[in-house]
Amino acid sequence: MINIQNIVERLREIIDDDTLIQLKEELNSYHVADLADIFQELKPEERLQCFKLLDLEKAADLVEYLPPQMQVELLGDIDEEVASRIINKLPHDAAADVLGDMEEDESESYLDKLPHKFSEEVRELLTYNEDTAGGIMNPVVLTVNAGMSVQDVLNHIRTKAEEDNTELYYVYVVDKQNHLLGVLSLRKLLTSPVTMKVEDIMTSDIVKLHVDDYNDFIVDEFMKYQYNALPVVDLYNRLKGMITWDDVHDLFEEETTEEIYQSSGISTEAVDEDEILSGNLFNAVRARTPWLFITLIGEFLAVNVANHFNHTVAALPIVAIFMPLLAGLGGNIGTQSITLMVRGLSTGEVTLSSALHYILRESVVGLGIGTIFGILVALVTFGWQHNIDLGIVVGLAMVTNMTLATMIGTLAPFGLKAIKIDPAVACGPLIATAIDVIGLTIYFTLVSTFLVKTM
Amino acid sequence: MINIQNIVERLREIIDDDTLIQLKEELNSYHVADLADIFQELKPEERLQCFKLLDLEKAADLVEYLPPQMQVELLGDIDEEVASRIINKLPHDAAADVLGDMEEDESESYLDKLPHKFSEEVRELLTYNEDTAGGIMNPVVLTVNAGMSVQDVLNHIRTKAEEDNTELYYVYVVDKQNHLLGVLSLRKLLTSPVTMKVEDIMTSDIVKLHVDDYNDFIVDEFMKYQYNALPVVDLYNRLKGMITWDDVHDLFEEETTEEIYQSSGISTEAVDEDEILSGNLFNAVRARTPWLFITLIGEFLAVNVANHFNHTVAALPIVAIFMPLLAGLGGNIGTQSITLMVRGLSTGEVTLSSALHYILRESVVGLGIGTIFGILVALVTFGWQHNIDLGIVVGLAMVTNMTLATMIGTLAPFGLKAIKIDPAVACGPLIATAIDVIGLTIYFTLVSTFLVKTM
Repeated sequence: MINIQNIVERLREIIDDDTLIQLKEELNSYHVADLADIFQELKPEERLQCFKLLDLEKAADLVEYLPPQMQVELLGDIDEEVASRIINKLPHDAAADVLGDMEEDESESYLDKLPHKFSEEVRELLTYNEDTAGGIMNPVVLTVNAGMSVQDVLNHIRTKAEEDNTELYYVYVVDKQNHLLGVLSLRKLLTSPVTMKVEDIMTSDIVKLHVDDYNDFIVDEFMKYQYNALPVVDLYNRLKGMITWDDVHDLFEEETTEEIYQSSGISTEAVDEDEILSGNLFNAVRARTPWLFITLIGEFLAVNVANHFNHTVAALPIVAIFMPLLAGLGGNIGTQSITLMVRGLSTGEVTLSSALHYILRESVVGLGIGTIFGILVALVTFGWQHNIDLGIVVGLAMVTNMTLATMIGTLAPFGLKAIKIDPAVACGPLIATAIDVIGLTIYFTLVSTFLVKTM
Repeated sequence: MINIQNIVERLREIIDDDTLIQLKEELNSYHVADLADIFQELKPEERLQCFKLLDLEKAADLVEYLPPQMQVELLGDIDEEVASRIINKLPHDAAADVLGDMEEDESESYLDKLPHKFSEEVRELLTYNEDTAGGIMNPVVLTVNAGMSVQDVLNHIRTKAEEDNTELYYVYVVDKQNHLLGVLSLRKLLTSPVTMKVEDIMTSDIVKLHVDDYNDFIVDEFMKYQYNALPVVDLYNRLKGMITWDDVHDLFEEETTEEIYQSSGISTEAVDEDEILSGNLFNAVRARTPWLFITLIGEFLAVNVANHFNHTVAALPIVAIFMPLLAGLGGNIGTQSITLMVRGLSTGEVTLSSALHYILRESVVGLGIGTIFGILVALVTFGWQHNIDLGIVVGLAMVTNMTLATMIGTLAPFGLKAIKIDPAVACGPLIATAIDVIGLTIYFTLVSTFLVKTM
């Protein structure tokens, strides 16, 4: 493991000392993945200075590892001639990503500078939606015919893979019209007799993606089937490209971010997940407001419930001050149950058919924790206010509240899933508010039944 | 894409009809990844019935895709002879996982039945902590010597890979004492002249894992360097095995689950993440109680703040009922900021050095949303209670509360990170409670300054 922080500090010293030859040597010696981490820590002007010192190959490799914003920033700040040579060294899918993030006139000027074949292929990639297989795939795939022998294929790879800089995981078998017929793993290729025909050893039952398949589906397919690469075909089963697991790794991280955002009521439906953290402020506000607004309506309901008991509050003001305590703990334990169920449904560990099991289990957990906390709260309240009735009522409200919160928090995700609404999107704030409203109703009912009446 | 639910229903019909030959044929025709999904949906007795109908190869492939509990359950319920033949067909790492999840006497009885070499290698794997590279790696790796020619290596693969059922991603170069010297990609191997020596084309600057490296580090290394497989060495740089990206895929999902659990205050430090959802109830309670307890203490602080203003509440009971509204919205928008920062710090998109930028950005977002909601709340309150002063005070409290909540929610993760505490573990409940306490203090101060005084 390397210590990025130490390296960054040493680089800064070298930059200051102006011993550029030494700096150039050091920078080019790092693995690009480490360089990417180092670049993240550098200031923009230091970053540019270091980028200019990289060899062309290294610079191109590095660009693939950098976040989109930094790619555009660095390529825009260096000599346009050098930038276009770096882009030319990128795999097609990475080149399309970089050019797709630029202003249109800027990317057009690069496309005009690039070799004709390369720029044509990249232009085609740019026509696909960037959130679909077409927008992610690499169009350069090594293909062979079903009639070739293993030796033919090995010879073909030797010449072809070298010249095209092709990624090599599987060899795809196509007919003359480029229809996908089968797939051959390198392992199979390396262990089969050289005279064997491709059609006799290829797998024709293929897991494949369609150019219009969306990100989340692509991630699911990779996670489920666990292949290193999947072929991408068009409507007519013509092979258009392939997606490799390192492309999916980025998508997977995005999906995870979306899942985490949604769990705290940040909407990723209308606003791209990148935009929320670093895009324009209007989009950030837009992504965060919808669920806050629903919370607002829900909490006004809670206010209404409390107001319904305003005579109780007037008669015994001390009861009002326990509201945050009950709402806070009910909300927290309910959120825990929601989180467990939503995540379980998302990974497939929890299924709709096991709903009853989990609702019972969570209710027992809620009752157990609720009882512990109820007793604690009752004792503390009694010790503090020297009012045994108040202690009992607050404690009782705590038990009921926490138990109900786990039950609602567990039930709701299943309910939403059953009516085909994604629980990850809709759950958190909605249920937390429902728990607040129900919790306050129970509390004030207990207070007005046992406490204010008896005084 | 296949529809699992439809398949499950059809399978049930066939099971009922007792046309087992047809069922056997259908089951064996599915991809194991699909079969795993189908098995998830079946009831235990249906599952067992279907499992018994699978060919040995298919059954072994399927076992790798099933969750641990189901593996042990199915293998325990079938004939022990068949079970040991299935285990023998598993890759070493999968066999060790299955046996490690069984009771010790049960796994010992299987190990005695398995071929000596296989059981010895599996026994060695079982000595490693299952959360480290040693516990995850597959010990069967294809190795070659530096002096071999490309043609030698190709011949070696042809005989060796077939007989050992080796996974093939890279060829590792070792000396006579099995020290790791270099790595050779299949691509390099297939595109280099056959007379070339291994030592002239291998990469000797290798990213490698150590047998004692923990899960989270392994995931980080795979995500960072984006290789399909990484070699695992011991203290003396002797090659012990390799980890492939499909092993890491499971780890990655676990890491994500932990991150999501922690964000809602479910502790994954003392209790394994599997245990919380389906282990014994005591562990479930144990994982969920610590942060609830901290919330309890925090909320008693909030109660204390409110109690400090009990004369205010007594003089004007209506002010008390707005507490849930303020706490709810402050908590929600604060949680959003926490989520954005914690996730950003975890993916590396947000760094400590950019703290100031994000604190400013979030404060502006908080002020913007707070102003919108403050005006809304002021208008609704005025319309409802016909009290303009009350409307203004509640609205003002809302703006201040939401703005402060975003600021605290953004600042706290950076603060924790700076003092080397993982913000993912410590943040959520702590900060939510802090926001409650501060929010109520501001609210009651506003009320007693502008409202109760003027009445």
